[in-house]
Formats: sequence, C-alpha cells, structure tokens
Amino acid sequence: MSEAKPFPMNAWYAASWDYELKQALTARTICGKDVVLYRRSDGRPAALEDACWHRLLPLSLGHLKDDQVVCGYHGLVFNAAGRCTSMPAQETINPSACVRVFPSVEKHRLIWVWMGDPALADPAGIPDFHWNGDAQWVGEGGTFYKLQCDYRLVVDNLMDLTHETYVHAGSIGDEAITRNPFSVTHGERKATVSRWMKNIEPPPFWGRQLGKPGRVDRWQIVHFEAPSTIVGDVGVALTGTGAPEGDRSQGVNGVFLAAITPETATSCHYFWNFVRNFRQHDQSLTTELRLAHVNDGRGLYEQDRAVLEAQQKAIDKNPRQPFYNLNIDAGALWARRLIDRRLAAEQPQEPARARAAAG
Amino acid sequence: MSEAKPFPMNAWYAASWDYELKQALTARTICGKDVVLYRRSDGRPAALEDACWHRLLPLSLGHLKDDQVVCGYHGLVFNAAGRCTSMPAQETINPSACVRVFPSVEKHRLIWVWMGDPALADPAGIPDFHWNGDAQWVGEGGTFYKLQCDYRLVVDNLMDLTHETYVHAGSIGDEAITRNPFSVTHGERKATVSRWMKNIEPPPFWGRQLGKPGRVDRWQIVHFEAPSTIVGDVGVALTGTGAPEGDRSQGVNGVFLAAITPETATSCHYFWNFVRNFRQHDQSLTTELRLAHVNDGRGLYEQDRAVLEAQQKAIDKNPRQPFYNLNIDAGALWARRLIDRRLAAEQPQEPARARAAAG
Amino acid sequence: MSEAKPFPMNAWYAASWDYELKQALTARTICGKDVVLYRRSDGRPAALEDACWHRLLPLSLGHLKDDQVVCGYHGLVFNAAGRCTSMPAQETINPSACVRVFPSVEKHRLIWVWMGDPALADPAGIPDFHWNGDAQWVGEGGTFYKLQCDYRLVVDNLMDLTHETYVHAGSIGDEAITRNPFSVTHGERKATVSRWMKNIEPPPFWGRQLGKPGRVDRWQIVHFEAPSTIVGDVGVALTGTGAPEGDRSQGVNGVFLAAITPETATSCHYFWNFVRNFRQHDQSLTTELRLAHVNDGRGLYEQDRAVLEAQQKAIDKNPRQPFYNLNIDAGALWARRLIDRRLAAEQPQEPARARAAAG
Repeated sequence: MSEAKPFPMNAWYAASWDYELKQALTARTICGKDVVLYRRSDGRPAALEDACWHRLLPLSLGHLKDDQVVCGYHGLVFNAAGRCTSMPAQETINPSACVRVFPSVEKHRLIWVWMGDPALADPAGIPDFHWNGDAQWVGEGGTFYKLQCDYRLVVDNLMDLTHETYVHAGSIGDEAITRNPFSVTHGERKATVSRWMKNIEPPPFWGRQLGKPGRVDRWQIVHFEAPSTIVGDVGVALTGTGAPEGDRSQGVNGVFLAAITPETATSCHYFWNFVRNFRQHDQSLTTELRLAHVNDGRGLYEQDRAVLEAQQKAIDKNPRQPFYNLNIDAGALWARRLIDRRLAAEQPQEPARARAAAG
Repeated sequence: MSEAKPFPMNAWYAASWDYELKQALTARTICGKDVVLYRRSDGRPAALEDACWHRLLPLSLGHLKDDQVVCGYHGLVFNAAGRCTSMPAQETINPSACVRVFPSVEKHRLIWVWMGDPALADPAGIPDFHWNGDAQWVGEGGTFYKLQCDYRLVVDNLMDLTHETYVHAGSIGDEAITRNPFSVTHGERKATVSRWMKNIEPPPFWGRQLGKPGRVDRWQIVHFEAPSTIVGDVGVALTGTGAPEGDRSQGVNGVFLAAITPETATSCHYFWNFVRNFRQHDQSLTTELRLAHVNDGRGLYEQDRAVLEAQQKAIDKNPRQPFYNLNIDAGALWARRLIDRRLAAEQPQEPARARAAAG
Repeated sequence: MSEAKPFPMNAWYAASWDYELKQALTARTICGKDVVLYRRSDGRPAALEDACWHRLLPLSLGHLKDDQVVCGYHGLVFNAAGRCTSMPAQETINPSACVRVFPSVEKHRLIWVWMGDPALADPAGIPDFHWNGDAQWVGEGGTFYKLQCDYRLVVDNLMDLTHETYVHAGSIGDEAITRNPFSVTHGERKATVSRWMKNIEPPPFWGRQLGKPGRVDRWQIVHFEAPSTIVGDVGVALTGTGAPEGDRSQGVNGVFLAAITPETATSCHYFWNFVRNFRQHDQSLTTELRLAHVNDGRGLYEQDRAVLEAQQKAIDKNPRQPFYNLNIDAGALWARRLIDRRLAAEQPQEPARARAAAG
C-alpha cells in the first residue's frame, strides 16, 4: 500500500461548489493531478489538465476566450475538449497537440470530476447528495481546501462518532455515544453505522435545537459510499414519541454531508454541509449552524481539522501499519475495506500472475 | 540529462555588478558552489570557496583584513590565492590548508567568475557586453538574484520574443511579432534570431520612444552566446527611412543585455540591462525605462519572472522530456543545442568508450 | 557514521528545567523520539511516548486526568507506566495496549530522561550539575530549544574556547587565549581542557566582574562528560595572589553548565546556565549576566548560535569527513572519541563478525 496511490481514479470526486465556478479559470489539484476548471458560457463545467502541451505552463495562468483557454505564455488555445485550436505564428496545428480533459458534471450543487478512464465515467454513479439542493433541507456548507491529511483519515473520523465525546466535548460530545452500542451493515459500495441512544439528557447543541425540556432519543445513522462520500442522518426526539419506531415528528433532524476529495496522498479537499429540515426560514439559525461548524478555529470541524492534521504528521513521522483497532472502529474498518476493494480493482492484473509464475 | 549538471563549468559567469562589489565579503552560490566574493584594495576582485578549510563555516561570515579573509569562528586567515596564512595558537601552518580559488575578472561593469578548470580560464572568452560600459549607450540595469528556474528557461524566453504578445500585451507585445517570419543563423558558440516587422503600427512602448507619428519598421535581432548570455538589438524606425537597409537615423535603438548565471540546477541569477543610444542625458527616461522593466512586480521582467517560476514548478512536478516544440522555438532550440555541445564537451570520455566496448 | 544515529541512547539527557514542568502535558522530541512530559501530583516527572497506541495522535494534544493521560481523539487513557487503563465503549482492555515509558528523574534543577534500555537506567549516572541548585552558586540560565545543529558541534564549541577570541571579541574574547597553551586530560567518560593565562590584562567582561585594577591570572578549566554535558570552571584573580596555586580568594569565579540534548541528528536542545559564587545577592548582576548570554540576539550564546547553525548548514550542503583539525581541537577531539566509544558500545556485534568472516 505504501507506494501505490491510496485513492481510486475511477470515481466521481467533488471539485468545487456550484457558486464558486465562474467563467474564469480555477486551479485545483485532484488525485495528484493539476486541473484547471471553468464554466462555459452555456453553464456547463469544463476540466482540463492544467499544463500547456507546449511548455507546461499552468493553463490556469492564462485566460478564457470564448469558452477556450488561452495559454499565458505563447498563446496556444485549447477548447473544452482539450484540443489545441490555435498556435502562434503557424497555420498548421499539430494534430497531437492537446491536453487531457476530465469528465465533469454539476449535480447536487457540486461540480464533480472523474479522474480515471473517461470511458467509465457514468454520471449515474455520482453519489446521492440531493440534500444539498433539496428545498426541504437548508444549510450553508463550505470546504476545507488542502486539508493536510490522507482523505481516509476523514472517513475514519466520520465513521466513528465516539470521537465527538473527546474532540467535541461541550457541544455534541456525550458519554452516551460511547456507552451505547452501534451496528454496522454493508453492501458492495456502501457501509452504514447506526447508533440509537435512548432516554438520555440531550447534549448542549441538540438541546438548543430541540427547544423543549425533557429526555430524548438520539440517533446517528451514518452512510458511507466508497470511495469517499458520507451522509449522516442525525437528530434527537423526545423520548417516548416514537422516533426509534419511525415517527420523528417530535424531534429535530439534521444531515451532515461530506465529499472528501484526495488532493495528494496526504492531503484532501473536504466539502461539507450540514442541513436541517426544521426552522428552514430562520436565517440566523443557518448562520449559527455554519459558525458552529467553522468559525475561525472555534468550530466543530476545526477541532477535527486540528486532530486530523496532527494525526497525519504523526503517521508521516512514525509509520506503523496497520493501525491497532478498537471495537469502535468497526464502521471505519468496513469503509476501508470497501476503499481497498476499489483500489484492488484498479490494479493491473499482470504483476499478480507474474508473481504466481515465479512462485 | 536528468542527473548531470545542466550547466557547463568551463565558462565565465556574471557574479555581481561592479558597484555591488566592495571591500567586504559577499556570499553567492554559482553553479551549485558557494563562493565568497570581495574586492581587494587595488580594486581587483577575488573569489574563494565559501567554506573554511577547518570546520566549514562560511568564510563570508568572517571579515576582511588586509585583502585576506579571517574566518569568523577560529580566526584562520586565507589570502586571495586561497592559501591559509595564519592559524590560531600555532606557528606551523599545515601546507595543505587552503580553500579553492575561482578566477575572477571585472569587465563590462560586471564581475565574471570561472567555475571550472582554472587552467582554461582565458579572459578573452568573456562575452562582449561592451554596451554596459560604453558612453554612447545609457541604461540602469539590475539583477534578479535567485530566480527560481533553470537558467535555460530564461534563454528560451529571450530567444523567442513571440511571448511578448501574450506576456507583455499592452507594452511591447504586438500581434505583428507572431505574424512576421524570422530567421535563425548559428555558429559554433553563437546563434542569432532576426525578425523584421515592416510597416506596422508601433506598439505603445516603442511609439512613446520614437515620439513621432506614423507607421514603423520594427526589428528584433537577438544574439545568443553559449552558455548563457544574450544581446538583443531592438528598435523601430519610421517606415521608408531605410532602417532595414541599414540607416537607423530616423529610429530609436535599444539593446537588452542578459547574463544568466546558474545558481543551482533549478535557480539562476539574471543580470539584465536595457541600454539606448538616444536621449542619453535624459535621466528621467533612464528611470522610466528601469521601472518599465522592474517596478515592484509591475515591470516587464517581473511578468516574465512569474511565468518562468511557474514553468519551473510545473516541470518539477510533471517532468516530460523533451518539450514539444513549435516553429517559434527554432532560435531557442539552437541555443539549447549549443549549450548541449558545451555540456557534452565536459563529459568524461571513459563511459562512452566503456559503453562502446560493451556493445 | 553517516547513517547510524550520532547519539547514544543509553544516557541521561536533560529534557526540561524544573520550573517548566507542571501538571500539564509538554511535547518534546529527544533523540529522534517524540516524548510527552508531565509532572504527577506527587511531584515526580513522567515521560511517555507521544503517540497514542490506537491511531498515533500525539498524546500531548490530550489532557491530564488524575496523573493519567487522556488521548484527545478517542479518549484512551494511559497511566504513567504507559499502560492503557481505559478504552472507549469497551470493558475489556487489550493487554498489549500501551505506550513506551521513558525513565525520568528530577535532579540539579533539571528533568533528565533516559532514551535507551530502561534496565540500564541508573540515576547514579546523572551528570554532576550540583551548581545549578547549590545555595553558594547563583545564576539564571535558560534553554535554546531546537538549536539547528548536531549536538556535537556545541561540544566542539565549548571544548575549544579559542573561538572566544573571534566569536566573542569585545567581551570575553582575548588574544591571550590563543597565545597560551592548554593541556588535556581524560578518563573513560570524562575529558578536561585546562588553560591558565597568567599576568594578562583582563578582558572587558572579567575586568568588570573583578572590579579592581591590575593584571590578572585567568583560568578556563572545562570538564566534559560523555555524551554531552560540560562544566566549565572559569575566572580571574589578581596576578600574584596565588590563584594558580589554589587560592582564589582575590578573584572572581564562575561556572558555565551545558547539558546538550540531541533532538534529531541535526538539532539539539541546549540547556545552559552560568553561575557565580560572588555578589550572590546582587539581583541586577544576575540579570545582567543572563542578558550577557542571551539578549535578543545580542548575547554571547546567540553569537555562538549563529555560528553553529551556519556550520550545520555548511556540513549538510558540503559533507566532508573527517574535519581537518588544528592543535586547538585536542580537547574537542577527546570529547568526540569518548562519544564514539559510547556509540560503538551500542552497536550490534554481528555485523563486525560478519565483516571479519567475509574478509
């Protein structure tokens, strides 16, 4: 695992929020590749290799002209299909002059790009993040660009919410999370961790959201889809009102959405949102919830960032494979297994055979 | 080419402007070697290895005393020939105690050093930069020390002025540069790119210099001498006044001078000047021209710097050899060939023979 | 020597001043290992490996609870013996769950840790630094944490005080140091450099301390103990009052104390003190002496730091083994030999035998 890429290439990865992508050039590194992103005049996104065919200058240092990218050094022009359409001082254009194009799609308020074999890029495989754009659900997310850790450490983090007890004490942390059992289910590409904490005092954050006194049933149902998206269904309802049986009408419900895009083997872009289906028109609650997550270093996710980046530094300095695991890691371990299957599916077959032959 | 040094050692490289070199110690890295430069009391320059024989402390951290360098740690003294002339607390001086000395010469307002075999250091081989010190030509140049790119990228840049159209649009850039053909000639150590753009509207910069209305003939005649100096004869004259035939009296003429000294394999010191033979006594024009080239990030050469450093970063990240080339690269390709010949001439002969024997 | 660790592991190294260690977690790297230090409620120090058994998060990012360390990610608890005493959400604790503990002792106002085999950690081997805590001797030292040089360069520096003449000219530097001979004696673990400079003008610093006119006898008796502690007995007395024969009553006497702890192969923590046995109650003299040593870049030791860090950079760039040596290096060479013996004693025996067999 040490030398191979730790991320599958044949996957849709979030590259940008919809509102960030304009008719202008944006540079972003995804899965170790430099990409230049832009929006065409008809609104469709485009994603090209960010290095001119001629002398490698990043195309993102040039400018857009009529949906085409003009290199900032010698003026070569590339269209959204990656083909060179103009060269300085010559009429004939070398037909091999092109840059790689990456399939890109706008969906659920994110721009998704496919970094692997374009022939396999099926938009039907984009993860279901409909909550981002659904009128019933309201929230204002953001991105940690260039988070300095392996994207899988974020997956580990979100697949084991017992860390809330220690990292997020005083807000959503609660000893009840570690006291109550959880179950894990999984399929080919998905794994789900479910935990119900019944008849507990609500932790401070959820108590405020509920706005009613009394003990609650709290749920955390976290869905992972390989390689790196997570949808977490979380909330509390007054105990005895039937939430565990399916009636959440006396509760408050949120969903956290995480699309974690590898930048390099040890950094990632973490697109996050937290949406709710209560008090949807309360703009100050929206702002308050955003600040609860990210607020100049005082938000929940910034507490996670500090831990995740410190963990990556420790791993770099002190590599120890595999990690030791606890019972709480069952969900994360399934996520890792599903990622590993995707990675294995992308390995060339020959070496295995060669090894067998040599054996 | 990947592991070998990308610069010949047997060459004169600019190390400092004349006015910068005082009777004081200056540290500079040239061709990967640390050098301490100073001026002796009789005015002659001196250049020594910048590491004490004893414990490697950079001699540039010490001080000068009577044209000799005193180490700042234990007081060893070295003369301008690199020989140790005093050791602390002992009468007998180890005869092997010396530091390397590099031949150095002041000429054409620059200090030139020879980093290779001293036996080959012939001052007659110093490039002709007489414009720097000629009373007929006036200008105020400078240096980009530690420019973060392979010195050959600067050569490429100056040997193909079509980049002006894209990098320097609005000043000296002009579509005429890409429209008009150029010719390349070359000898053993020199290559020249010539381009005449006849009967064009002058670009803004040259229109201002000419100070007369009307269409012009513009010329760019760029002389490269291996490994890394360039003299560019540029200007405009009113069309029909005979400039292409040799009469430049109705025009304005400038010369750009570039001595590009490798610092490391991926950085260089770029000594530049732009001199003119018109309005020589107009001090504010001199200042204006300097600011046009370097002006807190808004000058021509600073636009080049941004491109060159970005190109080097892209090459480091995405090595691809060789570059793809266009017609416009013909001059730069000749310059590269002449550099490669110099590099090949410095390769030891044995490996080639060994390979032949094995073949 | 290039790849092996340049520091013995079986040694007591200073890790902290007594006043710095509180009932709180402090991170420190010693001999390449990350350590978390804290003081227990009964005052005893504790030192653990600074990486959680579970997922490597530095334990120093967690918090102390009842003399135990609680990990800041998932709440695992480790006692001062390194054993895990609590895991989240499970009753059974994996008996192998522990982090390494390093023997630690508080003595002579410093916290000392043992980085090697705990079975060999005998507190009787802690260097004699009694001056730090002795009521007769007064001083206010400090630490250069993360000094960017091999700890042995500091040893070299202190074992050859001729450098004072060049690095500390104007305060304690004096040509007399280089003019006068010195002697070196050594044992199994200790080496001593002694120099008497008789009947000299006192250098400015010592003249001020003595406070009397007249010529002096000056002494520098520097005791090294492998691997990296130094005690320097220094002072001046009026010439003719018998100091060389043992009567220092007409002089002033200081002792400099240096405990130099490897952080990595090329950085160290330099715990220093300078104590005196005269005018012990003069608080402004104490402050003045501290400022003479460290004073925002203007102190004696800061002059050394500039030289030491420049020397390390030069070594990194220009490795040349071994150093060339002068007569003045005799003391430093003995120190290096004693360090090398300690290093050799820690080498596994097998490779030597294998080499002999192959020979």
